[in-house]
Amino acid sequence: MAAASARQVNIAIIGAGGVGKCFLSQLEQLAARRPSPKLVLTYISTSKKALYSTDHVAINIADATATLAASQQAPLALPKLVEFLGTSGSKTVLVDNTSSQDVADAYPLFLNSGISIVTPNKKAFSGSYKLWQDIFAAAAQSGSRVYHESSVGAGLPVISTLKDLVDTGDEVTKIEGVFSGTMSFLFNSFAPTSGSGGQWSAEVKKAKELGYTEPDPRDDLNGLDVARKLTILARLAGLPVESPTSFPVQSLIPKELESVSSGDEFLEKLPAFDAQMEATKAEAEKEGKVVRFVGSIDVAAKQVKVGLEKFDLSHPIAALKGSDNIISFYTKRYGSNPLIIQGAGAGGDVTAMGVTSDLLKVLSQIA
Amino acid sequence: MAAASARQVNIAIIGAGGVGKCFLSQLEQLAARRPSPKLVLTYISTSKKALYSTDHVAINIADATATLAASQQAPLALPKLVEFLGTSGSKTVLVDNTSSQDVADAYPLFLNSGISIVTPNKKAFSGSYKLWQDIFAAAAQSGSRVYHESSVGAGLPVISTLKDLVDTGDEVTKIEGVFSGTMSFLFNSFAPTSGSGGQWSAEVKKAKELGYTEPDPRDDLNGLDVARKLTILARLAGLPVESPTSFPVQSLIPKELESVSSGDEFLEKLPAFDAQMEATKAEAEKEGKVVRFVGSIDVAAKQVKVGLEKFDLSHPIAALKGSDNIISFYTKRYGSNPLIIQGAGAGGDVTAMGVTSDLLKVLSQIA
Repeated sequence: MAAASARQVNIAIIGAGGVGKCFLSQLEQLAARRPSPKLVLTYISTSKKALYSTDHVAINIADATATLAASQQAPLALPKLVEFLGTSGSKTVLVDNTSSQDVADAYPLFLNSGISIVTPNKKAFSGSYKLWQDIFAAAAQSGSRVYHESSVGAGLPVISTLKDLVDTGDEVTKIEGVFSGTMSFLFNSFAPTSGSGGQWSAEVKKAKELGYTEPDPRDDLNGLDVARKLTILARLAGLPVESPTSFPVQSLIPKELESVSSGDEFLEKLPAFDAQMEATKAEAEKEGKVVRFVGSIDVAAKQVKVGLEKFDLSHPIAALKGSDNIISFYTKRYGSNPLIIQGAGAGGDVTAMGVTSDLLKVLSQIA
Repeated sequence: MAAASARQVNIAIIGAGGVGKCFLSQLEQLAARRPSPKLVLTYISTSKKALYSTDHVAINIADATATLAASQQAPLALPKLVEFLGTSGSKTVLVDNTSSQDVADAYPLFLNSGISIVTPNKKAFSGSYKLWQDIFAAAAQSGSRVYHESSVGAGLPVISTLKDLVDTGDEVTKIEGVFSGTMSFLFNSFAPTSGSGGQWSAEVKKAKELGYTEPDPRDDLNGLDVARKLTILARLAGLPVESPTSFPVQSLIPKELESVSSGDEFLEKLPAFDAQMEATKAEAEKEGKVVRFVGSIDVAAKQVKVGLEKFDLSHPIAALKGSDNIISFYTKRYGSNPLIIQGAGAGGDVTAMGVTSDLLKVLSQIA
């Protein structure tokens, strides 16, 4: 009985939106391909509904989304969920596919109960520094694992690479890059390395129409998403950054439009402010450069910042394409040429890939 | 007693050259920083000497190189070493810092005895396909682990990223890149994206003087090193490549110089063949391109090849600097813009870093 349960790992999932659906599909393939350990889905919920049985009967992964939609069960409150998962007798991994602060706040509770966590949720690792400390203290104490590759750069190996650099004793001196697919797309179109690019407000509108922005584009343009990612990387590099608002973050929302009531009204009024961005672009062009929205961490100087900077046309950051992310790690071992990782940093499938590879890592350690 | 040995992992090292010395230094730091599991060096050898005691007394890591140099012990024959390591009562990781085919051939023996392996040695994974199969079958059967991140691109996260793509169910369609620091340096100097570059033979001579080539530069110019790396990546991507000589590999050694007796004689006679390389460069320039020495794997077409190709000046492969490697993964999920990893792909410290991060991975799984 004990031996059997050692080769079974239960999976509990919170969140069944874009990333959640892609993850379910990857989990289904994974469970089919790998006979051991046996992966058993025992709980899945959205903010409104849940699917589980008190005796932890396996939920069919292939039609979990449909069954969940038809379910009459309400989600368990998080402390109740911890309790429920603890009664299964099998090792359990919680997959948090939400961007919920409430779920993030409960991570120490899950971890303390021996439940491992994999997640793309940035909130847990970019909120208060105390929550960060509580999470890793709980994991260290209980032996449960917590991985969050997709919290920065989606499936790109950003977090794992930074951890490897630090854990093997390299000295990370600087991290710099384009951390937002939205910002990447906007500036690659607005200020391309060849050709003149479009008007700022028109590019923002186009990005929204293509689904590259949040429903209200100000949620991208305020820089907070990038600031959250920088907070995570800075902490991993050893800087005890207090919060994503504790360092300079440049917002691209004109002051006058900060309080307009809707994203639509914002887009309508944005053209009146095109001259500001046009001037920034022209200033860079005069120096033979292009403007990009980047984040950087100077580890020695303990400085983190997010905002517009100018780059030579031959710089990898200037040459970026589409909505790609690029992250450069400057370290003592790598010298003047950084270790660079580049590629799609957003999208359901690649984000879910980071979560699935984290799950594989946890399975290799606990099963 | 059992509990105590569970928190101790013994380390055996073969090879104390450039990478070996850097690894020892990283191991020393690691052992000092991480109290658990306790890392105990119980065996270290070169091809001539060894250091160990029959009761597995810990060897001081800090002065292991010096003590080894003064040692009168001969290395154990590999089957004897397997036996010796098996009598310690602790879990053991073999660190193979050689490029020896003999050591590689013995991997199945070590793995079958429950000894895990971490190594930058390309030979084990790019030799016969049978050895590849034997190695992974032995690991799967015994539960011991084998990692070889530094066998391609040194410490760059190339192998782990490819494994993650495959293991999470992505479909890798193509892998392309510059896989040799020597070739990178030669072509970035010979055919730079701006300026005219030097003469081919002069660049080869300079590269040798700077220590960027093997003692005999033909060992780089024959393309075999790149072919070995391509063999490893192709196998991980699912192609059962028989050997590094089972696909087209372009050698940059003029036929007439293949059999000259020494590297020095080769360098002396190489200028007579500069016109060939100059013509290749000029042909690319006519198309507004530069020539680079690349390897590529077309997974769908099952084609692997290594040789010269032309690239637009704006292509990331053309824009490479110094002796950097660049590896692009084209996959179904990542679409038209590949996942790219770039940076130093050679050097003692960064190669040892890959070995050390592999060791950390193994420790997280077995300890």
